[in-house]
Amino acid sequence: MTVVSTAPPAGTLAPLSALSPTPRSTIRRGAGRARTDRSELYAVLDEGSICHLGVVVDGAPVVLPTVYGRVDDTLYLHGSTGARSLRGAAAGEPISVTVTLVDGVVHARSVFHFSMNYRCAVVHGVARPVTDPDERLLGLRAIVEQVAPGAWDHARSPNRKELAATAVLALDLTESSLKVRSGPPGDDEDDVRDRPGVWAGVVPVHTVAGEPQPCPTVPSGVPLPAHLH
Amino acid sequence: MTVVSTAPPAGTLAPLSALSPTPRSTIRRGAGRARTDRSELYAVLDEGSICHLGVVVDGAPVVLPTVYGRVDDTLYLHGSTGARSLRGAAAGEPISVTVTLVDGVVHARSVFHFSMNYRCAVVHGVARPVTDPDERLLGLRAIVEQVAPGAWDHARSPNRKELAATAVLALDLTESSLKVRSGPPGDDEDDVRDRPGVWAGVVPVHTVAGEPQPCPTVPSGVPLPAHLH
Repeated sequence: MTVVSTAPPAGTLAPLSALSPTPRSTIRRGAGRARTDRSELYAVLDEGSICHLGVVVDGAPVVLPTVYGRVDDTLYLHGSTGARSLRGAAAGEPISVTVTLVDGVVHARSVFHFSMNYRCAVVHGVARPVTDPDERLLGLRAIVEQVAPGAWDHARSPNRKELAATAVLALDLTESSLKVRSGPPGDDEDDVRDRPGVWAGVVPVHTVAGEPQPCPTVPSGVPLPAHLH
Repeated sequence: MTVVSTAPPAGTLAPLSALSPTPRSTIRRGAGRARTDRSELYAVLDEGSICHLGVVVDGAPVVLPTVYGRVDDTLYLHGSTGARSLRGAAAGEPISVTVTLVDGVVHARSVFHFSMNYRCAVVHGVARPVTDPDERLLGLRAIVEQVAPGAWDHARSPNRKELAATAVLALDLTESSLKVRSGPPGDDEDDVRDRPGVWAGVVPVHTVAGEPQPCPTVPSGVPLPAHLH
């Protein structure tokens, strides 16, 4: 039931601090699935492509998918300066960011023990609007590189007008939790004994990239760039 | 930029009502990506495997992944009766459910126009705790069949003790929105003209099932059931 521990990222000199649960980031249900290794948190965040950003609007939760990027212990988000979901966040209202990787469907002998294998990172906090021009570019670069590694240097950099239309927010990873379910079903012993002819196990789920589809306006003969091979 | 419209589900007799935006479910950013066809909403919900449930705890958003199932215009959720995230929802606090399908990474000529192709359904509302025994089974069946079609009849049904430990919630799909981005990058005309040698396009993202991995306690020779072929 244990996933392979992820080695710290290359270049890390000091040991990473463990995830220290606050009341809000303490995993209550399935506490045995909680992980406290910060490098595992980083690995999940680095493998994901989108997060789900939670904000509160008029007392109700609003959850929207968006892209993100990580630099050390900071998660960067961006959006239109006019986006309602970012306005509250930029004004200091509490937000949360959840990144979920689905690893498999767990087929049990009983429907009660059906489950998913997954890795889920949850970050709570108050975002900091990024105003420093260099940090804004750093954050935007991390966001683009998260979903398209190698793309930042290939494409045209943002101009002044585009930057003015873009809000960049930073969220500290201090208050984070990581929950992981892996391995076979957790069937009751009675079911394992009494239902020997019933198949149970895990159907893995993978996310794969398909064949790149060029934009119709790209002239024929333009090669696929190296970072997309 | 248009996705193929999905035919209404088989057996649908009356035309489905369109999605009627409320102030809360009105898509403000990228309004051109809003869809109002309820059958498209159903198709996205039916294709997904997990949703992100948003609740408000002590004034802050909490967003957690969970499984769900749909029956007509009702979304079912379940969880432990002790789960904090479900307690508030069961008590009538507003919740939201977001289902996001990632279809591709959009590589543009400028980093500003990098994007994701996706389909995202968002449901707002107040959940109804399901107490009727038949509806509870209907909801739980929909949840299991959502991630493991055919599994409900294969596995042992929940017993009285398991049912007593399980909360089932129903969320009406009345206040829903659907946002879709598809197609090639939306580059500026200047970039298309001035950067003819730069590749741009879409890298599709697919979710695929891997080879089923039997639980170590399943005796060798037990065949994979038909619904997993």
